[in-house]
Order: sequence, then C-alpha cells, then structure tokens
Amino acid sequence: MAEKAKNVTQMHRARQGEITPQMLRVAERDGIDAELVRDEVAAGRMVVPANVNHAALDPIGIGKAASIKINANFGNSAVASDIDGELEKLHLAVHHGADTCMDLSTGGDINGIRQAIVDASTVPIGTVPIYQVIAELEDGRDWTAEDLLGMIEHQARQGVDYMTVHAGILSKHLPLVNKRITGIVSRGGSLMAQWQLEHGRENPLYERFDELLDIAAAYDVTLSLGDGLRPGCLADASDAAQFAELDTLGELTKRAWQRDVQVMVEGPGHVPFDQIAMNVERQQEVCDGAPFYVLGPLVTDIAPGYDHITSAIGATAAGAAGASYLCYVTPREHLGLPNAEDVKQGVIAYKIAAHAADVARGFPGARERDDALSRARFGFDWNEQFALSLDPETAKEMHDETLPDGYFKTAEFCSMCGPKFCSMHVTREIQRNTGLGEIPLEAKQ
Amino acid sequence: MAEKAKNVTQMHRARQGEITPQMLRVAERDGIDAELVRDEVAAGRMVVPANVNHAALDPIGIGKAASIKINANFGNSAVASDIDGELEKLHLAVHHGADTCMDLSTGGDINGIRQAIVDASTVPIGTVPIYQVIAELEDGRDWTAEDLLGMIEHQARQGVDYMTVHAGILSKHLPLVNKRITGIVSRGGSLMAQWQLEHGRENPLYERFDELLDIAAAYDVTLSLGDGLRPGCLADASDAAQFAELDTLGELTKRAWQRDVQVMVEGPGHVPFDQIAMNVERQQEVCDGAPFYVLGPLVTDIAPGYDHITSAIGATAAGAAGASYLCYVTPREHLGLPNAEDVKQGVIAYKIAAHAADVARGFPGARERDDALSRARFGFDWNEQFALSLDPETAKEMHDETLPDGYFKTAEFCSMCGPKFCSMHVTREIQRNTGLGEIPLEAKQ
Repeated sequence: MAEKAKNVTQMHRARQGEITPQMLRVAERDGIDAELVRDEVAAGRMVVPANVNHAALDPIGIGKAASIKINANFGNSAVASDIDGELEKLHLAVHHGADTCMDLSTGGDINGIRQAIVDASTVPIGTVPIYQVIAELEDGRDWTAEDLLGMIEHQARQGVDYMTVHAGILSKHLPLVNKRITGIVSRGGSLMAQWQLEHGRENPLYERFDELLDIAAAYDVTLSLGDGLRPGCLADASDAAQFAELDTLGELTKRAWQRDVQVMVEGPGHVPFDQIAMNVERQQEVCDGAPFYVLGPLVTDIAPGYDHITSAIGATAAGAAGASYLCYVTPREHLGLPNAEDVKQGVIAYKIAAHAADVARGFPGARERDDALSRARFGFDWNEQFALSLDPETAKEMHDETLPDGYFKTAEFCSMCGPKFCSMHVTREIQRNTGLGEIPLEAKQ
Repeated sequence: MAEKAKNVTQMHRARQGEITPQMLRVAERDGIDAELVRDEVAAGRMVVPANVNHAALDPIGIGKAASIKINANFGNSAVASDIDGELEKLHLAVHHGADTCMDLSTGGDINGIRQAIVDASTVPIGTVPIYQVIAELEDGRDWTAEDLLGMIEHQARQGVDYMTVHAGILSKHLPLVNKRITGIVSRGGSLMAQWQLEHGRENPLYERFDELLDIAAAYDVTLSLGDGLRPGCLADASDAAQFAELDTLGELTKRAWQRDVQVMVEGPGHVPFDQIAMNVERQQEVCDGAPFYVLGPLVTDIAPGYDHITSAIGATAAGAAGASYLCYVTPREHLGLPNAEDVKQGVIAYKIAAHAADVARGFPGARERDDALSRARFGFDWNEQFALSLDPETAKEMHDETLPDGYFKTAEFCSMCGPKFCSMHVTREIQRNTGLGEIPLEAKQ
C-alpha cells in the first residue's frame, strides 16, 4: 500500500500555489487562463486526470470553467472482442474527438489490453477496477476488501488516470430500489450490492475510503464516484435511492478534498427531459460544485438501436445546465458490445452534445466554429464546409453521392434544392443585382 | 376562385358546436376527449388538417392538447429522384411513424406525383405552392399574384391538407437580414423576397390574404404561415428580421381566425439550445396559442451529415416548451436530396424527439410505452423489447449480430456485458436468493 505522506495530485500542487505543466496545457487547450485552472483545481471544481505513470498523456481539464469533455467506453467482454479490436476503438474514438476513454474489459488478457491502451493513449484512461477483480474469479461474490484495494493500486501503478469506484452505495440504500422497474443497472453497483448482501457487510470502499484516498494521492488517480443506484429507466429517475446515494457521494467528495484528492461525481442514466436541469443543480449543490460526469441521460426508453440519439438529447440538456463531462452511449447500448462503427457514431453524437451545450452556456469562443462553417456555407465553399464539420468524410460522401464532379465544389447549390430553389443562391443573386452586396433599403420602383 | 360564402373548415364547424367525425377520430387516436378537441379547434389552439378532397385521409390533431406530431418532407428536385422513389419515401416515412408528409417536388411531373401521393396517403399531405409556380417557369421571377393564387386553388382542389404560404415576409423586413451570415434560408422566403425586390411590390400573399382565406375556407386547407426569414445559422437566431416577421404572422393568424380558417405558424431553423424555450414562448404569445410548427431547430451548425441529431436535440427542447409539431431534418440536410434511408433516419430521430417531449410535458399516458419496454428489459424478454421499440428490425439486428441463437432471446444478458457482468441479471439473482423477490430490508448476518 502507498505511503500516506506522499501526495502528488494536481489538486495538492494547486493548493500549494503551483501552476503545473499539466495545468498550463489545460489552459492552452481550452483558451482559458492558467491561474483560473489552478484556482478551479484547488477548489475542486475542476479535475485534471493525470496519473504520474501515464507517460504519453496530453492532459485535459474537466470542470465548469473548461469546455465540456466527452468520454468513450470500450473494452471486450467475455462474449466478444479482442485486443486489436480494442486498440482500433481507442484510435477511432480519439480520431473522432473523444477527450477520454474508459477501458471496461472484462475478459481475456485484461492486464495486457490495459497496458497497451495506456501506453498508446494521449487521452486520459479510466477503468472500473471491480470488473477485473470479478473477471478473475470463478464466483463473482468471492472477493475481499483487500482484493479490491489491491486491484485499485495495481491499476494505479499501470497509469490509469481515473477510476470509477462505487463507494457511495450503502446497505441502507438497497431496500430503496425495491419499487423500481429496472432495479440496479450499474454493473459495478449491482456487484457491490450483491457482495454487501451476501456477506452481510457494509460497502468496503466506504468503510476503507481513507485507504482508497492514500492510493489516489500517491499516483494522482482522479476518483470518479460511481452512482451505483442510478436509474435505468424513466420511471426510476430522481427517486429516493438515487438521491440517498448522491448525498453519500457529497460526503465522500468532501473527504477526498480534505486529502487533496481529485474527484468527480457520476450521474444518470435515464431521466425525463424535464428533470435533467434539476438533477444537475442538485448534484452541484450536494457535491459543492465537484464536476458532474453524466451517462447521457437517455430521455426515453423506447429507442434501442438509437440510444446515441436519445442520450445525446439528454447530454446536451445536462451540459447546458452545468454538467462538465459526458459519457457517450452508442447505438448498440442495451443490445450488445459496440463495434468500431458504433463507437464512431457514439463519439460524433456526443461531440454534438458537448459543443451545443458549450454554445448554450456561452463558453468563450464556442460558437466561432459554427459561424465559420456558416460563412463557408453561404459562400458555397463546399470543401471548407467539409473541413470544418465534425465528420468531414461523411459530409463529403453524402454531398458527392449525387454531385461528385469537382465543378460542384464551388457550385451555388446542392442536389437538395437544385440551383433554381437554393435559398442562399437566390439571396446572393439579390445581393449581386443591387450591386451593393446588400439587400436595398427600398425595393426597386 | 372559390365562393366567399362557403366555409367547410373544421374550425368553422367547431365554432358551430359540431363535433365532426374528424374530431372524433383525433380524440380516439390521442386518447383525449372529443369535446376538448372541438374546444381547442374552435379556439385555434389545435388544427385538424383535412382537405374535403382528401378521400383517404385518417385525420390527426396538431396542438398542445394533442400528442406532438412529426412531419417528413420529401419530393424530387430537378437534380434527382422520380415518382417511384417519392412513393417509396412516403411509404417508409409513414411506416416508421411520420404523422404528416410534405411533397416538396420541384421537377418532373409535379401534378402527377402530387396526385399519386394524395391518393395513396392516409396522413395529411402538405405542399409549398410557390415551388410549383416557379418550377413551371423559365425565369423564377416571372410570375404574378394571380399565378400563385391560382396554383394554391389548383393544389387545394387536388386535396392538399396544409400549405406553407410565405405571407408574412414584408418588404420592410428585408433590409433586416443584411447583418446576417446566411441571409434568407427559406426557399419560399428567398423566392418571395426576390419577387418583391425585382418588382418593387409588396408581398402579394399579404396584400391579397383575404383571397387566400377564401380558398382555404372552401376546401379546408390549413394554412401553415411560413417563416421566410427564419435563421439559417446560430449567429442569425432570434434576430430583428425573425421577430419582425413573427409579429406579422401573429397578425395574419388573427385574420385567419376571423374567417374560421385553420392556421399554424412555422418556426426555426437554427437556434442555440438556450434560446429555444424563449422562441416557443414568444411565438405562443404573439400568435395567441396557434400551434407552433418548428423545423428542428438545429442546436449547432458544425455537423453536416448528422443534422437529424443536431435538430432532434432542438426539437425535443421545442416540444417540451410547447411546440406542437416538429418538421424532421434528415442526415443529408445541407448536403443533398434525402434518399430512402435518410428519410427513415430522420423519422426515427423525430419520433424520439416528439415522444421525449411528450413525456417531459406530462402528456397523459406518454410514458407507458417506456415503462412497458423497461419491464420487458428487466424481465429479459428480448422479443418484447424489440416489439415495443421504435425500430424493431434494427434493435433485433444489433442484438442478433453477436448472439443470433433463439436461446439468447430469453437469456439474462447480452454481449455488452455478458452474464457475469449484467447488472439486471445480478439484481434478479439477489431477488431470487432472498426468496422474496425483493432486496431484504436488512443484509444477511
């Protein structure tokens, strides 16, 4: 176990008044002041996940003063996928704009896969350590507190930047889920609850939270306080179980901050659109402004196969209301392990959500790219439109399907309307005919 | 021209105290009271687009007292598509859940295509009559007020249920677009503005609005007051041009209601997420609660190829805030004429938006389908999950790609997590182990 005395976290250094190279980089990437980054990290309102053993890392900041970040999950399961597939998903996710990735592998050579991912990745890598504990057992209930803490330290040593720990799901919360339609839908949460009930013991991560903080402080692992009781359907949203656990997460947030450990708080899940802002505001209040890391939320349960869309709607609303970090959901959520195309679709949907939310909350400079693309659109500079778009290849392919010739890359129309019905072409024609580049103040007589 | 004396509109009959067969059917479909439908239609807060010449129609209601409806646009352009393709798009759109369809054809045998679509369609069909006027001319500026009014009556006779008319774009509004990035982006709006400027005349549909009302009253064409100056990018949203035209649309709404003509009001377009509710509230106030028919809005301009998603986000927010009718946007918006797959993707995205908004605003019974699907999910009844989902084939295909065998249709896991890590499987195991079907109040000692 790590020594208690040693503390290498960004929060510790921020509180000492230091602007670290990581904070400088975060400031540079988001176009914000380095002093602001330090102040926010010191206050706990921003995290910079940066394990001291993650050599390839190019750090990012997560918090309200930064741009909204998105996370892509992947990892194999016992049922499907292999190491090459996972590395391809990492590459694809980062290529399309994922700010962080979680390796959720639960089968095969887990240590090898994780080390390969950490070594290859410039973005922060997260894990859920309980998965590996259980993957390595015959019976998923047959583990001890020492096994879990040992696994957390093992993964910290590997260079994992942030870890989901389900430390807030207490035995007294569990009966609160009995009224639910979908029970416990967090994987880690259900495994932890099962252990608590089978062994008749309190949550070991809660009871031994100080030891967890020792490890986090020694490697600078950012703790992501998992919401093991998050709702798994609209009917279960904002219920007593969810908010009871949130209160515990608020308590753990303060305990982490007392030890200068970086912490963020995870949130739902499935939430009706009208309850999203309330959920964000409640988390911000209960957890004193610790960054909120939401999984969607999905705003309806009826669209399996399209949950990147149902959840991007919720994620936009959450980001606009103050969530700082959006965990993507792929089209294959609830149906199977995502493949490479699913990962891409999930990332793009969440780039949209994060960006739209940044525009909505007035993050400085966020709208510049929209305006630049709109100028290119009005100027019929098709190549510039493609270049400025989130997925240039797809935009170009869709355009070129009907008008492939190079000539059409500067044409004042596309196949949607044709030249006679292109509104922007007509507007430009009006402007040209007046000779002023403007619509005249008085109509021609 | 139609006789002034004759008025066959649903609004006229509602105001006479009649509950028409159309109103009864609207009430039945939405599970609301027929008296309520009549009251809302009489007050103008609901429209039932139902041209007396549309024999195959199965009517729907659009308004805050009804469930939110979605519209799919298609139609050929001079550049691409044919009649069989358009009928296939109609079929696909209705199959996936479009409540209405607009035929926006601008090339080929327009009359033949439209008549085929009206004859085949059980859903209300809409058009933008100015398109056909201009499609049939060499020079798109060379038409008269009589041409346009004649075309409107011709299409009314064909059985078109609702028509977009750009009657609110006045000459005094036009200089207000000079500060914009993307000028005028409504096709009809730009064509009307061009005519006004070239001929030095006021908008003929505004000047001769009473004649338009005569036609609408004679066939019961619901007027959809087009927002010719809607913003085409985030930067242009909520500007002086948009709101000046909205004020005119409010004035025209009241004039239509004086003649018992059904009317709805069209809205943007491209709007930052934080301005959407304000836009809906403003329309509802200016137009005295006339149904708001929004095109998205898109919440970012940077994702061509994915504008079904950028706009479904905005459409959900608009619906939750009080918009009654959502015009879909396909992935190919801004890039080309949508093909059949694009139509499907657009419709599904908007079914999601409309449903999520109905849940958010507490429309009676809206959440029942979510709850039923969630129960099937927790019960691992995969076939029932597929059946209850918006796109059963896609959901089943995604699931079956890794676990095709019939055995897995009742298995307590999917390939996403596998059996050991399925949270709902673990929850059910906990329930089974207690013998109570519940998580016990006290943990095992």
